Parts: sequence; structure tokens; C-alpha cells
Amino acid sequence: MQQERPFDLLNKTIGKKVMIRLKSGDGIRGTVSSFDAHMNIVLDEAEELGDDGASKSKLGTILLRGGNILFVSPV
Amino acid sequence: MQQERPFDLLNKTIGKKVMIRLKSGDGIRGTVSSFDAHMNIVLDEAEELGDDGASKSKLGTILLRGGNILFVSPV
Amino acid sequence: MQQERPFDLLNKTIGKKVMIRLKSGDGIRGTVSSFDAHMNIVLDEAEELGDDGASKSKLGTILLRGGNILFVSPV
Amino acid sequence: MQQERPFDLLNKTIGKKVMIRLKSGDGIRGTVSSFDAHMNIVLDEAEELGDDGASKSKLGTILLRGGNILFVSPV
Amino acid sequence: MQQERPFDLLNKTIGKKVMIRLKSGDGIRGTVSSFDAHMNIVLDEAEELGDDGASKSKLGTILLRGGNILFVSPV
Amino acid sequence: MQQERPFDLLNKTIGKKVMIRLKSGDGIRGTVSSFDAHMNIVLDEAEELGDDGASKSKLGTILLRGGNILFVSPV
Amino acid sequence: MQQERPFDLLNKTIGKKVMIRLKSGDGIRGTVSSFDAHMNIVLDEAEELGDDGASKSKLGTILLRGGNILFVSPV
Repeated sequence: MQQERPFDLLNKTIGKKVMIRLKSGDGIRGTVSSFDAHMNIVLDEAEELGDDGASKSKLGTILLRGGNILFVSPV
Repeated sequence: MQQERPFDLLNKTIGKKVMIRLKSGDGIRGTVSSFDAHMNIVLDEAEELGDDGASKSKLGTILLRGGNILFVSPV
Repeated sequence: MQQERPFDLLNKTIGKKVMIRLKSGDGIRGTVSSFDAHMNIVLDEAEELGDDGASKSKLGTILLRGGNILFVSPV
Repeated sequence: MQQERPFDLLNKTIGKKVMIRLKSGDGIRGTVSSFDAHMNIVLDEAEELGDDGASKSKLGTILLRGGNILFVSPV
Repeated sequence: MQQERPFDLLNKTIGKKVMIRLKSGDGIRGTVSSFDAHMNIVLDEAEELGDDGASKSKLGTILLRGGNILFVSPV
Repeated sequence: MQQERPFDLLNKTIGKKVMIRLKSGDGIRGTVSSFDAHMNIVLDEAEELGDDGASKSKLGTILLRGGNILFVSPV
Repeated sequence: MQQERPFDLLNKTIGKKVMIRLKSGDGIRGTVSSFDAHMNIVLDEAEELGDDGASKSKLGTILLRGGNILFVSPV
């Protein structure tokens, strides 16, 4: 009996900070503004993360294509 | 006469620990919270695994895109 | 309650400058003229960017295939 | 006049041992428990194989995503 | 209010010269003869371009598969 | 006026030997037992081929996923 | 006003020689026997080409999967 679906997690992250690991291994952190069924995600105040997880550069608002994502994690 | 389908296995892992091998070769372990038909999986208490299978870092709750998965194994 | 969708952001960029990061890591900057549901985007006055974000070469008007995009960011 | 289809072979392997060569070149051996139209396969008593075809490590039961498969061979 | 779509640009290039950057980084220049919804494009008098943008070799008429394209630019 | 389609060639190879070049560059030879619309092919008495085209190892019966194929050639 | 479509070019090559550049960079030359909507192409008297465009080896009749093609050019 499965009550939840993976996209329910995304829905709960709206307005909250997430860390996204890309397929390339790079990390991006930001506040989820919206998403769609392809896992395309708009992040506000997005930052690129270095290997140590610290902010490396500020990206501002970005529309990230879902196909590049390895995983999304609430922070 | 095939009684079961591969997603039946996923269904039985809900609330249980699994080890996931990614296409990249990396391993992730966690407790399955939900999944969908694309094999997108939400894992709670997820951990990245080193080559020796030991925990390398804690990821918390993650939504993993199914397209990155090589295999899922109950542990 | 999600009011916006990721493509709403693209819609607001029409006639405005964006920075696009490609999957290859390369950057392109230009003014959005049009886009479609595959995230194919026509940019006017497009420029290739060097690693420092400065203009490396002028491309003029380009039709960029959406599948190559990592993210789009208003600038 | 074609009487059989490739998935008929998979159907006959249920409950039997197969060797699977992955796109990565790695080999996996196990007993087919179930499969679906995407060639997702559940293997019981799965083992990773070394270059010499000998067992390298035990994986237990795994759900393997079909998209990673080069070929499946009854053993 | 979006009046144009990206393929409108392609339509205007029929009978005109374009420069196409491939995903591989290579460049091809030629005169657009026709295209379809997959961005497959027939180019007449196509030429491969060197890194300096000069013609490296003549290809004649080619049917280029759209999936290989990074961007198309009128010249 | 096109009378034949590419899959007609596959149909004629049933029960006959073919050489298959994979995207990876590797070669496989065997007798076609069945195929489907994805170009998944069951080969009997399949052999891996070395660079010189000679048999390198015997694979027995295999179900090869069509997506890995560069070309199929009757021998 | 577009009168032709890219596949019209393929249709005109039936029974004629073409040069095909693969995504891998390799070249194949042969006489088009048939093709389908995926750009799968049957070539008769196919030859692999070396970097100088000369014949490197004879392949006979081949069914080439369209997804591997960069471009097709009448010769």
C-alpha cells in the first residue's frame, strides 16, 4: 500500500532549500520555485557547490533541465 | 506462466533498506520511501558508499532519478 | 499549491538576456527571441563565453537545441 | 514466417540461470525471477563476474534496469 | 505573448546559408534545402569547417540528423 | 517507388548466419533465431569476434538488445 | 513555402551510391537498397572508409541503425 509518490517530495520542497547532485557529479543548491513532470526545476538563489559542499559561485535564478539530475535532496 | 513482475520487488522494499548501484559505478544505500514507474525512488537516511561498501557520507532523504540506476538490491 | 511552472520563467525571459550553461560546460549568452516545449531556444546577439564568463566570440542569431542545455538563467 | 519473438527466450529462462553482459562490459550471473517489456530483470542469487567469468562478488537478489543490458544468455 | 517559435527561424533559412555547430564541436556550413520536425536538415554545398571557421573539405549535399546538432545559425 | 523496407532484410536472415557490429566496435556472429521491432535479436551459436574477424569466444544463445547495434550483415 | 522534406533526399538515393558519416566519425559507402522512418538504411556493396576516404574493407550488404548516423550524402 504505497501512499506517497516521489514527486510528492518535490512538491514539499517548494519554497525550501534543496541540494541537487548532477550526473556530472557537480552540486547545485537553491530554493525550489517550481518544477514539472520532467523534473525541470526552477531554483532561486542558486549556487554552485565545490567538492567540499561550500558555495563556489552564485548563479541567481536558474531553470535546470531535469535530465541532468542524479538526485534532489532537501537540506 | 509469470506470476511476478520486476516492480513487485520494488513494492516489497518499501520501508526497507536497499543498496542501489548507479550506472557511474557508485553505490547508495537507504530506506525506500516511494517509487514510480520511471524507477524514480525516494530514499530516507541515504548514504553514499565507498568501494568497500562502507558508508562514505550521509545524504539524508533523496529523490533519485531512475535513469541513473544500474540495479536495486534489498539488503 | 503550485502556481508557477518552469516554462513560465522562460516566457518571462522573452526579449531579455539569459546565460545558458550547456551540458558540455560551455556558456552562451544572448537575448531570448522564442522557445518551444523541447526547450529549443532562439537567441539573438548570442555570444560564447570563456571560463571567466567574458565574451569569447560572437555567434549572432542561433537556434539552440534544448537537449544540450544544463540550465538557463536570466542575467 | 517467424514463430518466435526475442522475449520468448526470456520467458523460457524464468527459474533458470542466465549470464548478462552489460553495456559497460561487466558480467552478472543469476537466476531469472521475473522480467518486463523494458527488459528490466529480477535475478536471484546474482553474482558479479570477473574478466575470467568466475564469480567476483555476491549481490543477492537484484532488479536490473534493462537499458544497461548488452545481451542475456542462458547458461 | 510569444509570436514566433524556434522553427520559424529554420523556415526563414530555406535557400540561405547557415553555420551548424555539432555536439561534437565540429562545424558545418551549407545552404538549407529542407528540414523536418526532428531538425533533420538537408544542406546543399555543405562544407566542413576547421577550428578557424574556414572551409576544410567539401561535402556536397548532405542529410544531417537533427540529434547531432548543438545550434544552427544564419550566416 | 520503394518495394522493400530494412526489416525485410532481417526477416530473410532467420535461420541464417549474420555478423553484427556493435556501437562499441565489437563484432558478434551467430544464426538469427528471431527479432522484434526494436531490433532485439536472438542469435544461436553466437561467437564474439576479435579484430581480425576470427572467433574469440563462444557465447551460445544470446538475446541482444537492439540499441547496441551499429549494423547487421548477412554472411 | 517548403516543397521538399529531408526524407525526399533519401528516397532519391534508392539504387544510388551514398557516403554515410557515423557519429563515431567513421565513414561507410554503399548503394541504398531501402530505408525507414528511423533512418535505418540497407546498403548493398557497403565498404568501410579510411580517413582518406578510400575503401578500407568490404562489408557486403548491411542494415545500418539510423541512430548511429551523423549525415548521409549522395556521391
